[in-house]
Amino acid sequence: MAFVSEKPIRFHHCDPAGIVFYPQYFVLMNELVEDWFERRLGVPFSQLHQHDRLGVPMGRVVCDFLEPSQIGDVLAFELAVERIGNASIRIAVTARCADEVRLRATLTLVQASLETRRSVPLSPELREKMARDLAAGPGSG
Amino acid sequence: MAFVSEKPIRFHHCDPAGIVFYPQYFVLMNELVEDWFERRLGVPFSQLHQHDRLGVPMGRVVCDFLEPSQIGDVLAFELAVERIGNASIRIAVTARCADEVRLRATLTLVQASLETRRSVPLSPELREKMARDLAAGPGSG
Amino acid sequence: MAFVSEKPIRFHHCDPAGIVFYPQYFVLMNELVEDWFERRLGVPFSQLHQHDRLGVPMGRVVCDFLEPSQIGDVLAFELAVERIGNASIRIAVTARCADEVRLRATLTLVQASLETRRSVPLSPELREKMARDLAAGPGSG
Amino acid sequence: MAFVSEKPIRFHHCDPAGIVFYPQYFVLMNELVEDWFERRLGVPFSQLHQHDRLGVPMGRVVCDFLEPSQIGDVLAFELAVERIGNASIRIAVTARCADEVRLRATLTLVQASLETRRSVPLSPELREKMARDLAAGPGSG
Repeated sequence: MAFVSEKPIRFHHCDPAGIVFYPQYFVLMNELVEDWFERRLGVPFSQLHQHDRLGVPMGRVVCDFLEPSQIGDVLAFELAVERIGNASIRIAVTARCADEVRLRATLTLVQASLETRRSVPLSPELREKMARDLAAGPGSG
Repeated sequence: MAFVSEKPIRFHHCDPAGIVFYPQYFVLMNELVEDWFERRLGVPFSQLHQHDRLGVPMGRVVCDFLEPSQIGDVLAFELAVERIGNASIRIAVTARCADEVRLRATLTLVQASLETRRSVPLSPELREKMARDLAAGPGSG
Repeated sequence: MAFVSEKPIRFHHCDPAGIVFYPQYFVLMNELVEDWFERRLGVPFSQLHQHDRLGVPMGRVVCDFLEPSQIGDVLAFELAVERIGNASIRIAVTARCADEVRLRATLTLVQASLETRRSVPLSPELREKMARDLAAGPGSG
Repeated sequence: MAFVSEKPIRFHHCDPAGIVFYPQYFVLMNELVEDWFERRLGVPFSQLHQHDRLGVPMGRVVCDFLEPSQIGDVLAFELAVERIGNASIRIAVTARCADEVRLRATLTLVQASLETRRSVPLSPELREKMARDLAAGPGSG
């Protein structure tokens, strides 16, 4: 089952061409991951960062920008889990405006200590919760 | 021959973990492309946008974030041309701090009209100039 | 009657000190004005910009940052109209987290043509709608 | 004697109206303060934040946006010290493109501990260095 969060396109997301400046899509996908951690995994970023002293920096991004978006569009960002590694997770994101696909991305996030900046294995509890959003069944890497 | 532009990491590029927030790397790579158009191709973005009414939105991004960067680091962004298409261009970017590679990216930019938002073929003059920065000789796709 | 819009503080609003980077408060206040135009004045920014070819750039900002905000805080931004000029409007903004005031600002926006960049008088209809949110009754300047 | 740092206006600073989005002026003024600390006061932000564990968050901003700026403009940001307080400093900033004044701002920065978030008095050494850039002689508040 995929997780979906809607994001309105704001004036401040747009560039002189009148369309979303592409780094802003990554800011929006960062919000999506934040929403997923808080609403679906039950781990708000405030707890993750300030209490657990963990972060989830980006390891790898592949993203296709298929159609432009402009002010007033509302994009539905859909997140599905592709692979759960030891300390990392790969997710697939699709953003749509109505039926039009605007972008497709594959993001690999790595859990890391804010103190040492080294990777930290995902806890069994977190892995279990993440596994519920696996695109095709409960397998993991 | 590759094009290089140095970028200092600023306070405003960094996140609560004290490292560059990854969408900011794309802002910096946008500056790199801007520098390349102005200094190497002889086409400042002010001319491209305001006079020619053309833009170069992003079509596809593949990026590996290998090591974190923090305030005060100076990153050398190196740009090489991988493929020159009809209306698009694929470039390879490597960012280094001293000898350490911080990220590697492949970016596909598409030249488009600001009015119609449709792709516009690259002019022979621009293709010729771009071809000088081809990673391996003057061939094109 | 004041207009209120709630904004959660996101990871991407925060700096290496773990608190909101102050330019991000202005991005949030830009969203507030956007919300106000859309929800209260009935003029979405998409219509204002793309159809009417008008914008509301900032003329003057006075802002006191009273207490820091961090990830997970939800700020209630309250907007009241202080003065309606010929082509400009002055608004007062207060942002609170629970009962704590985080910032107070006075913003002067100027309606301008996107083509000529010159100021354009506010229409009687818009002035009338704005006057409903005057801090102290329906007068205007 | 005033401190000056030049900043080119980039594509990513501009909004759908084709002019600098005003929060980006504050990002640029943050760079200006960073440049001033590093080049004039001899205290790079990397040292201030990571070694001294101090920051200089914004306390108060007053800013007049007089003329718009667009891609390709090079702005000379000039900084002069207006008042040196116990833990705070008030600076005046003027940004010009050629002879045209684009903005004037007064910024009050407060030195604070990154750990406790409380204000920390400026050291005598730092006050002395700051005093060299006082707008009208070596007095302080």
